[in-house]
Amino acid sequence: MSDILKFYSAPGSCSQASHLALEEAGARYEIVKVDLAGGEQTRPAYRAINPKGRVPALATSRGVITETPAILLYIAQTHPAARLAPLDDPFALAQIQALNNYLSSTVHVAHSHGRRGSRWADDPAAHESMKRKVAANMVDCYALIESQLGDGPWVMGDAYTIADPYLFTVTGWLKGDGVDYRQFPKVAAHFERVQARPAVARVLASA
Amino acid sequence: MSDILKFYSAPGSCSQASHLALEEAGARYEIVKVDLAGGEQTRPAYRAINPKGRVPALATSRGVITETPAILLYIAQTHPAARLAPLDDPFALAQIQALNNYLSSTVHVAHSHGRRGSRWADDPAAHESMKRKVAANMVDCYALIESQLGDGPWVMGDAYTIADPYLFTVTGWLKGDGVDYRQFPKVAAHFERVQARPAVARVLASA
Repeated sequence: MSDILKFYSAPGSCSQASHLALEEAGARYEIVKVDLAGGEQTRPAYRAINPKGRVPALATSRGVITETPAILLYIAQTHPAARLAPLDDPFALAQIQALNNYLSSTVHVAHSHGRRGSRWADDPAAHESMKRKVAANMVDCYALIESQLGDGPWVMGDAYTIADPYLFTVTGWLKGDGVDYRQFPKVAAHFERVQARPAVARVLASA
Repeated sequence: MSDILKFYSAPGSCSQASHLALEEAGARYEIVKVDLAGGEQTRPAYRAINPKGRVPALATSRGVITETPAILLYIAQTHPAARLAPLDDPFALAQIQALNNYLSSTVHVAHSHGRRGSRWADDPAAHESMKRKVAANMVDCYALIESQLGDGPWVMGDAYTIADPYLFTVTGWLKGDGVDYRQFPKVAAHFERVQARPAVARVLASA
């Protein structure tokens, strides 16, 4: 890959999953930090890159890719030597994509109701009602994930894949949601294993 | 493929997207209808198939696949002759996956706040507040989709892919959400083109 990627991210956001995958892949990329607290993602300069006004976004020589599961699969496909996905095994790949899609469409969404309720309702009382359900919803989501995890060390067994940095990233939000991840022993062991990888230290150092 | 797939679906739900893709792929599959109104998806027999208690689910000889974007990619990968995805072009595939993930994690979620508010809050007043924002959110989502669609005839241009049945399915919900899709000319033309495909008639006939 001679393509130098530009990766638009914000520390603490779901962009961490793709950032970790870029590190694990040995990709050549530049980080562009987007100031979410300052509202940079809603301004025209950033919307010209990602009209959704969200992170992450990955700018390639052919155009911009958005949505975490799409970015993760792209990184795996374009860096085959890193073996971050079983690209030639449709069933195994579907298991990864199913988890990553569950993380984006159900777990991340459940989490977002604690801080971004204004996306789905205008009434402040509704936002408070949403906040009260976040911890219970996250527990339900993680009970399901716990029941589907095997003995590891990684989501797919012996191979570290694009499911691992994404699960790690979302698990990292549980404490802020009022949930102790140690009630899920397989999830907890997974979180601690990923945390020990050198890529995590490199990503945190760049934040 | 000698594998006979079992496809768990419910008419009117997002499972229609995968059902259409199975038809377009010429897949061998059996339909198992899940009675959502009767709560069948929450009972132990169905949870043994899909612990999430949702449709769609695709049972293969190796196990069950859930989540629409994962099922769609699996169908494309296992039926390469149907050319439903540019499997060897990571950037083009990422564009498809980005749209399909946006449909599942943002557009479907926005729609669900009109009928399934109890997922995210327990207070009936909060559910009413959510309902009031559905039409505006769906308009925002479709304004973005309209801005990104090209001249067609399909999402990816000349090739009909796994993005088309999913966009078609979600567009079909707009009327029920109080949104006239004809305000989005490219979306409207896309919807009508997909609707004219023989696979749609076959899927509707089986419903």
